[in-house]
Amino acid sequence: MKAFKNVTLVTCDEEFQIFKEGLLVIDRDKINYCGSMDVSVLERCEEVVDGEGSWILPGLVNCHTHSPMTVLRGIRDDSNLHEWLEDYIWPAESQFTPEVTTQAVKMALCEMLRSGTTTFNDMYNPQGVDIRAIYQAVKTSGMRCYFSPTLFSKQEESSDQTIARTRQTIEEILSYQDERFRVMVAPHSPYTCSRELLEKSRALAEDLGLKLHIHVAETEQESQIILENHGKRPLAYLDSLGYLDWPAIFAHGVELNQEEIARLGQSQAGIAHNPISNLKLASGIAPITELQKQGVTVGIATDSVASNNNLDLFEEGRTAALLQKMRTGDAREFSIEVALKAMTIEGAKLLGMEQEIGSLEVGKQADFLMIQPKGKVHLYPRERMLSHLVYAAKGQDVDHVYIAGQQVVRDGEVLTVYMREIFENPLL
Amino acid sequence: MKAFKNVTLVTCDEEFQIFKEGLLVIDRDKINYCGSMDVSVLERCEEVVDGEGSWILPGLVNCHTHSPMTVLRGIRDDSNLHEWLEDYIWPAESQFTPEVTTQAVKMALCEMLRSGTTTFNDMYNPQGVDIRAIYQAVKTSGMRCYFSPTLFSKQEESSDQTIARTRQTIEEILSYQDERFRVMVAPHSPYTCSRELLEKSRALAEDLGLKLHIHVAETEQESQIILENHGKRPLAYLDSLGYLDWPAIFAHGVELNQEEIARLGQSQAGIAHNPISNLKLASGIAPITELQKQGVTVGIATDSVASNNNLDLFEEGRTAALLQKMRTGDAREFSIEVALKAMTIEGAKLLGMEQEIGSLEVGKQADFLMIQPKGKVHLYPRERMLSHLVYAAKGQDVDHVYIAGQQVVRDGEVLTVYMREIFENPLL
Repeated sequence: MKAFKNVTLVTCDEEFQIFKEGLLVIDRDKINYCGSMDVSVLERCEEVVDGEGSWILPGLVNCHTHSPMTVLRGIRDDSNLHEWLEDYIWPAESQFTPEVTTQAVKMALCEMLRSGTTTFNDMYNPQGVDIRAIYQAVKTSGMRCYFSPTLFSKQEESSDQTIARTRQTIEEILSYQDERFRVMVAPHSPYTCSRELLEKSRALAEDLGLKLHIHVAETEQESQIILENHGKRPLAYLDSLGYLDWPAIFAHGVELNQEEIARLGQSQAGIAHNPISNLKLASGIAPITELQKQGVTVGIATDSVASNNNLDLFEEGRTAALLQKMRTGDAREFSIEVALKAMTIEGAKLLGMEQEIGSLEVGKQADFLMIQPKGKVHLYPRERMLSHLVYAAKGQDVDHVYIAGQQVVRDGEVLTVYMREIFENPLL
Repeated sequence: MKAFKNVTLVTCDEEFQIFKEGLLVIDRDKINYCGSMDVSVLERCEEVVDGEGSWILPGLVNCHTHSPMTVLRGIRDDSNLHEWLEDYIWPAESQFTPEVTTQAVKMALCEMLRSGTTTFNDMYNPQGVDIRAIYQAVKTSGMRCYFSPTLFSKQEESSDQTIARTRQTIEEILSYQDERFRVMVAPHSPYTCSRELLEKSRALAEDLGLKLHIHVAETEQESQIILENHGKRPLAYLDSLGYLDWPAIFAHGVELNQEEIARLGQSQAGIAHNPISNLKLASGIAPITELQKQGVTVGIATDSVASNNNLDLFEEGRTAALLQKMRTGDAREFSIEVALKAMTIEGAKLLGMEQEIGSLEVGKQADFLMIQPKGKVHLYPRERMLSHLVYAAKGQDVDHVYIAGQQVVRDGEVLTVYMREIFENPLL
């Protein structure tokens, strides 16, 4: 057993406990003790790390991203969503090779680990992707993920063909039988999938017992398109196809009215909130406060770096908090506690992983990050730690990261992704 | 003369020139050459620094902050402006001692330098401030600033007394005759100063030939108060007192209608835009795009760390860009170029310093920052530098900072503020 003493623990559990003179003990991959300093517990440990006043948080959960797009960082900024997708992103993706996408995923893994994210939920265009190579990269990094191939309707392919191809990739992923590399069924969106493909994707999810992951209600334009083509707004349309009666991650949820928010509160779907991407593509601000009040689970997400342009979940959580205050006109909304939970345990809940990760609790996986405030002037005065974690900290403040008890970042250096390879050979 | 070769120069000048194989030469405190690599120029230099592919930007300009409040970081979050000010900030400030405020300013200097800011515009509550001690701290740091004592109306003091006291502080500052430590006349706001104090402040500015610095149109509540008490909205009220016919920095400008924006375009006043503080206190989003279209100069600012909660101008400039896209519904607004200029040359213009600082141009002061992208995965792919500077970079990415040709930050370490003193003795 390994102990971390002289640390402040921010548990992010239901009671949101803070232990100022804290002790965290891990037994192989799991948390064995999490609480106030206890000498009798400490004595049981073979190894003791002196945290020297560090702050410990659960590993962060990024609920919606597209890691193979990481090479597209900065490819096109200052563009609106549909032009950006159709004229820049999709043409660039059509040029992807397995070499490029694997490299891109490694860059993303490196950036996420560096900034304290230990679990991510990916949705990727399967074109130009060698899933086995990416699996190896993720496995080596130590990160946990859902890595789900996107389904699009294509002129040259029937729905049955798309489903068959996707089922094959999913079965490949399932064959790895690796808890840290899971998969969902991920139709891209109501506006890029035909009704038939959406129906068959929903059936596939039920058939395989997998969750759904889909972009929903990202822009006003989407609402108009779906209303015109299907006579319903996106949420009602998906509802009519059974998407609200099955565990689903809806990315974005910007364009939702009161009725739709109430319906989501009664559904099995939750929201992956991408505040920065929604600003950058001029989509809007999702009604997160109202969603949370209706009991909808909301996790924080970065989207891809092509519309963000980084994978820093500290910045994302802070932006989420700042935006809800302004949007509701009440600075008390989306408080520090709400923000830290959204970055951790609520994200875990959204992915259905709340029994395993998302908080510092005995029996859970030992996924956590450590921040040493010493020498970081923007994290002073030190005793106001909770405030700084939400309103001042950056991903770069993370010094150490552990996943399942294994150290993956030490003194800001990612140990499990070979960065030199990425930097010297950007493949662009 | 000292040369920086093997660098990419982002000039932020009128033409927004970029030199990819750039050479920057400084002669004592000034820029002697800024352009493409030129061997004949390089040969004239006694000292040559190999930038190894670094990016060089002008030093950043923070147009509105309150550095003596830096010890209040995190004192109270998740509160609306007027409650926050009256119940937390002002009572805390009333306890300030010169020892605390000098320490606080040192913390702010350290944080600003670390993140690439070389010039700041401060407005501080003079209670518990030893201006000479603070001047020494700023001078030692190397930073440039306007450091203006705020005027408030107080029950126990007449306007004449407040003006006399302020004039004394201003004359003390003027007696230093230091170009890097200047002063403005800074009445706090239309809602905290009586009409008489505002009139006398305006007269004092003209008498001393100094600019004005004032909070204006920060919240809807302010508009209501001023309308009730003076029969006009804040801008019209200040206009009637001559505040638009004299060089003035208006902090915030959130609550402005079309008519007011047009009037500002015809005035001598500019806006210090504090996007994060305006979100955090639920004030709103300033109509920056419209202001810029009317020719109003807009600089970027952090406000104090008590409502931000850091002094990172990269984060602030990015937030400004993201918010205007969302607010206007057009992702093309507040482009990369607009953002980088707002963080540099437009800020310099707002402070009336555009002949001295704000861009990399021959004859200007050698104030600049260097970022080495190597090893920083969120700044890859490297060739999309401009995008990364706005949409991905953090203050912590800054490696080196020079002011007037003197290095003040080296490898991320602030050379001119003694951090240990701050960290070991936070005085709280």
